[in-house]
Amino acid sequence: MDNYTPTSRTRIRRLPKRGSYDKLAVHAILDEGFICHVGFAVDAQPYVIPTIYARAGDTIYLHGSAVSRMLHTLAQGVQLCITVTLLDGLVLARSAFHHSLNYRSVVMIGSARLVDDKDEKMHALQSITDHVVPGRWNEVRWPNALELKQTSVLALPLAEVSAKIRSGPPLDDDVDYSLPIWAGVVPVCTRLGTPKDDGRVLPEVPAIELARIARRATPAG
Amino acid sequence: MDNYTPTSRTRIRRLPKRGSYDKLAVHAILDEGFICHVGFAVDAQPYVIPTIYARAGDTIYLHGSAVSRMLHTLAQGVQLCITVTLLDGLVLARSAFHHSLNYRSVVMIGSARLVDDKDEKMHALQSITDHVVPGRWNEVRWPNALELKQTSVLALPLAEVSAKIRSGPPLDDDVDYSLPIWAGVVPVCTRLGTPKDDGRVLPEVPAIELARIARRATPAG
Repeated sequence: MDNYTPTSRTRIRRLPKRGSYDKLAVHAILDEGFICHVGFAVDAQPYVIPTIYARAGDTIYLHGSAVSRMLHTLAQGVQLCITVTLLDGLVLARSAFHHSLNYRSVVMIGSARLVDDKDEKMHALQSITDHVVPGRWNEVRWPNALELKQTSVLALPLAEVSAKIRSGPPLDDDVDYSLPIWAGVVPVCTRLGTPKDDGRVLPEVPAIELARIARRATPAG
Repeated sequence: MDNYTPTSRTRIRRLPKRGSYDKLAVHAILDEGFICHVGFAVDAQPYVIPTIYARAGDTIYLHGSAVSRMLHTLAQGVQLCITVTLLDGLVLARSAFHHSLNYRSVVMIGSARLVDDKDEKMHALQSITDHVVPGRWNEVRWPNALELKQTSVLALPLAEVSAKIRSGPPLDDDVDYSLPIWAGVVPVCTRLGTPKDDGRVLPEVPAIELARIARRATPAG
């Protein structure tokens, strides 16, 4: 009951040991990422567009301009795929063939619903704002009626979902371990730099604290 | 002649000033990224899968297991979309509405060709290996006949291509600048950690040098 049920479209077939349907694992990946890649088709041509998102319980919210092609297309309830990928390391083996990447990814499939209800729309926008900086929503000016009208919000229920994770060192062929080649993992992580204000912040206002935005307790491996 | 020609499928319609078709700008983004997201449809269901890639001139190479669904599908010449996204900053405005992200992305559209020629296949695999660590190909054991057979390589010509870039501070509504709210950019960048060998590296072999993998000369802004 704490797993998503794999379907023919989300069951991991290649290297199934890397697959996971565990809700906690899926949610941890979704909550750590900043952006997702949304896939949808227009006239049989697939498009993949990066955008921000947020998870609220078992729902993924997307938002964008009401006049964007992506939002307009998705609001019609077409099939879509949303993927979130975290790159954790470069896996360098002794053979070219066994080079790999350490990563955690989530693939979500379904069709989205246009959020019309004003309360749910505000809740979604709060989720998206707080996904980037927790607590930010309560500090900023909220959307007014015109801004709300210019913004479309879409909801995708998390139902057909799978995660795929690779971690750990490279695995070389036995015979290759005698080669004088460095092999191991170069960790890759996402780092936040020093905040740069826009030059018009009022004097008494403190800078944003990076600790609020920090995503994970342990470094990438 | 140093630009890709925008088509109805790649012309940036939303916020066209963020669009670019300049080859140098496109190539710089592609050469900096580690992974791309590949979009394709199976029975009208879009899928978005993260994978490694490399650019060689005006060709993008992908590779994977010869038995993977993605490679098998793409090898049939179906329409696909490959997107590379670099996240550069969190753009925090005084209003929720004007929050944004700084990013550089490239969207590539077309259909891929299965690379059968052995020399081109080896060239593609070298490109992919060296895309992660320049010069790595000449240090490692090259693919043998069985490994080559187990690996499919696809080539996408760079033809329908666009880049989209946002940079700089948030832009708030005039009236909001009097609000006591911090606004600016939190830079986001990809950092490499200390390499961790796999415990079986021969004693005389030096560790991999991170400077070889470094991607950009200037920090993200």
